[in-house]
Amino acid sequence: MAPSIRIGVVAPGTRIEPELAARLKAFAADSFLDRAPEIVVHPQCFLSAGHFAGDDDARLKAFVEYANDPSLDAIWFARGGYGACRIAEAALAQLNGASRTKTYLGYSDNGAILGGLYARGYQNIAHGPIPVDMTRAGGEGAIKRALSWLIDRSPESLELSVIYEGKTAAFNIAVFQSMLGTSLEPDLSDHVLMLEDLGEYLYRLDRALFQITSSANVRSVKGIKLGRVSEVPENDKPFGADAEEIARYWCAKAGIAYLGRADIGHDVENKVVPFGALRR
Amino acid sequence: MAPSIRIGVVAPGTRIEPELAARLKAFAADSFLDRAPEIVVHPQCFLSAGHFAGDDDARLKAFVEYANDPSLDAIWFARGGYGACRIAEAALAQLNGASRTKTYLGYSDNGAILGGLYARGYQNIAHGPIPVDMTRAGGEGAIKRALSWLIDRSPESLELSVIYEGKTAAFNIAVFQSMLGTSLEPDLSDHVLMLEDLGEYLYRLDRALFQITSSANVRSVKGIKLGRVSEVPENDKPFGADAEEIARYWCAKAGIAYLGRADIGHDVENKVVPFGALRR
Repeated sequence: MAPSIRIGVVAPGTRIEPELAARLKAFAADSFLDRAPEIVVHPQCFLSAGHFAGDDDARLKAFVEYANDPSLDAIWFARGGYGACRIAEAALAQLNGASRTKTYLGYSDNGAILGGLYARGYQNIAHGPIPVDMTRAGGEGAIKRALSWLIDRSPESLELSVIYEGKTAAFNIAVFQSMLGTSLEPDLSDHVLMLEDLGEYLYRLDRALFQITSSANVRSVKGIKLGRVSEVPENDKPFGADAEEIARYWCAKAGIAYLGRADIGHDVENKVVPFGALRR
Repeated sequence: MAPSIRIGVVAPGTRIEPELAARLKAFAADSFLDRAPEIVVHPQCFLSAGHFAGDDDARLKAFVEYANDPSLDAIWFARGGYGACRIAEAALAQLNGASRTKTYLGYSDNGAILGGLYARGYQNIAHGPIPVDMTRAGGEGAIKRALSWLIDRSPESLELSVIYEGKTAAFNIAVFQSMLGTSLEPDLSDHVLMLEDLGEYLYRLDRALFQITSSANVRSVKGIKLGRVSEVPENDKPFGADAEEIARYWCAKAGIAYLGRADIGHDVENKVVPFGALRR
């Protein structure tokens, strides 16, 4: 039986273990039966070079190879970590027509590439769960949600408000901050911008939101929703405000509508947020 | 005997202890004798509100009051920490003519205000030691260096290369990153830009330098010099390059000249870097 879709997995940042790739394929086959996708994991995902899944050249080539491959329907980023911004601009410059028709799904560090693709007019970009989420307790639910969206565009995979909010986009705060002013920054006018973060001191969150809300592009959004801000380390002194108060503070200063919470984050409940207006 | 100069101390970020202020005044009197400055420490420096030396309003008012006071020759920032970017733009909008003639000295978090002043054409801005450096082992040397520069513009206080490099500026990397695209970012064309950092994982340094070297403004500098990058935490995996290799990597990618090391950092050897061309 032919697979429902073919999904290529690459790792622009940090590596994954071969065991995770095997578990992922088995889980997809078991969970989706006759709708199961074929998951093709690039061997680059298992390379190791310092912080990265192979050096810049290896990561760039793997991404470009799979993105340009017309036999693949989707690119699914194996993991975040760090490293996408080192290859994003050079990789995007090498993409072909076949790369424009496929779907790209990732989050965290992958946001550098997702944003860059969206900035270049790609239409099937989404922020959502990735293979490494399988290693979290309860992670199978996140993987199933991602695959259901890739295979069937299942509405139950979505962050609920994307259904009625018009254009949306979602990023990790530290990653999005670092994209501002670079060629990876997409036009976000009239979008609901959803932002989540992990493991940042609140003073860093505050400083990042100073920069983010100072951006003319960000000031053109419909509004900001705050995803989950998790694993905030204890500082030697309490900041004096929580993450949502910080988001409200900077939105108010910048004249940006603060629209409440978004159901995204570095966790197994992370929902899918397609970039742009929802296609049905 | 009249003091050589009058120095006002304010804390736009995190507070200091009253004992530090007393120690500072005693040290200045002992060290400079008939050249001793009068150091006027604003009581705002001792306030506490969460992470900050008083709430935004208290910090803003103290800075504006002292900056606008014609009887003060210099503003010396008590400490970094975090908080300057929350008040910088509003404070700068309230400054008067008297504020333009005085000297401003600070570093770390204070860079947000120093950059904003320089962006607005202030001519006596410098990156260098601050009162809190007195709490470091050997910190008296740093304090003496700062005061010698404030009182006498002593050349031995300077980062040596500012004497022959033409225009210079210096910032903490994370702070400078967060100023990009905001009204606090000064024109750095033809400057030697010196960058230092403290306590950042190398992957964060790498990501910050991606954004910094992507900036058209930064691409117009004469070159970048790397100050000390200290107290880098151990990550779960080694990054695969050291701080200087990372700086060279991004400078090369961006076509920016990497000019070697700068004698600045979060330590007692931190030298004074006046912004702009050196005035003698």
